[in-house]
Amino acid sequence: MQTTEQQHAPARNDEENSPGPIALSGEVSVDDFARVFRQHPGGVSVITADSPAGPVALTATSVVSVSAVPPLLAFSISHRASTAESIRSARSYVVHFLGRDQLEIAQLCATSGVDRFADRQLWARLPTGEPYFPSAPAWVVGTRINQLDAEAASLILVRATESHVDSDPDSVQPLVYHNRGWHHLGRHSRVE
Amino acid sequence: MQTTEQQHAPARNDEENSPGPIALSGEVSVDDFARVFRQHPGGVSVITADSPAGPVALTATSVVSVSAVPPLLAFSISHRASTAESIRSARSYVVHFLGRDQLEIAQLCATSGVDRFADRQLWARLPTGEPYFPSAPAWVVGTRINQLDAEAASLILVRATESHVDSDPDSVQPLVYHNRGWHHLGRHSRVE
Repeated sequence: MQTTEQQHAPARNDEENSPGPIALSGEVSVDDFARVFRQHPGGVSVITADSPAGPVALTATSVVSVSAVPPLLAFSISHRASTAESIRSARSYVVHFLGRDQLEIAQLCATSGVDRFADRQLWARLPTGEPYFPSAPAWVVGTRINQLDAEAASLILVRATESHVDSDPDSVQPLVYHNRGWHHLGRHSRVE
Repeated sequence: MQTTEQQHAPARNDEENSPGPIALSGEVSVDDFARVFRQHPGGVSVITADSPAGPVALTATSVVSVSAVPPLLAFSISHRASTAESIRSARSYVVHFLGRDQLEIAQLCATSGVDRFADRQLWARLPTGEPYFPSAPAWVVGTRINQLDAEAASLILVRATESHVDSDPDSVQPLVYHNRGWHHLGRHSRVE
């Protein structure tokens, strides 16, 4: 969708159209920031990677498409995340896009203190070695090509090298996280 | 959600658990990439900025939270987008998180060849000058603090300086874009 917008022909707003006074504080507290992003839904992904200590996995709502040519995507990871060091030092990732039927995997990989790879029926390894969840209806494998480190988080830029989509993607009801709750999309959520 | 995952205790999968042969091609075509990301829903945002030629606006599904302390967010923009040059050279942005009631604004700012600022009832300027859409239920103002340029797109890292959330966020049904269609979230979309 980022490619469909256009430059606006010059136009200036007039003073009369002010919606009333807006008080600007010049700062955004942790609570303010959390409150705003609770209003911003995100498609649910699980990112896996291998590390010297074994496979790691995390649930994320921060995966975005960056460009189709070359095929680039990005995600953010907090440095406070226990998987952060493994993710930041990994060279390749599997990014899984989850449907309602994978809610259990989304919850598993968002829960602290559990062994996310305890159930050997849930995961396998690709021929290239990366751990992944075969039940995910769509996934990409990619290589880290760049990284933007902020104070307490990193943006990881990934070039996709493999992709997979189930033969019947129309049967998938994608999982969305919003305001601390899980949602799913389908006919029932369409805006007519 | 990126902060809740954890390191996996070492565990290796065994060969018997292979889900069958996976053919790896080593490349991802434009169609492959598009097919995968059609399975990845995104909350709908509109990003506005000022430019020497007047205000610009684009609809995006690529806005993500990066960290709460400091309050950082990021979005991607294709260099082919007609607003790309204005967005990449702007210093500050307003990122609006839209609900179902703002579908018209989302469509307006995703449509080529129309004057997105023609309707002066739709937009105004903040005291600091940035153009914005006051009807959006939540928005942040932010300053570009870093940028990651890929071949055909850029990731823009923004530090939030102002935020606004409507007094009754529970009345908002957030807008989500998925598989070329618009969806909205609410009780009807909750996974029980």
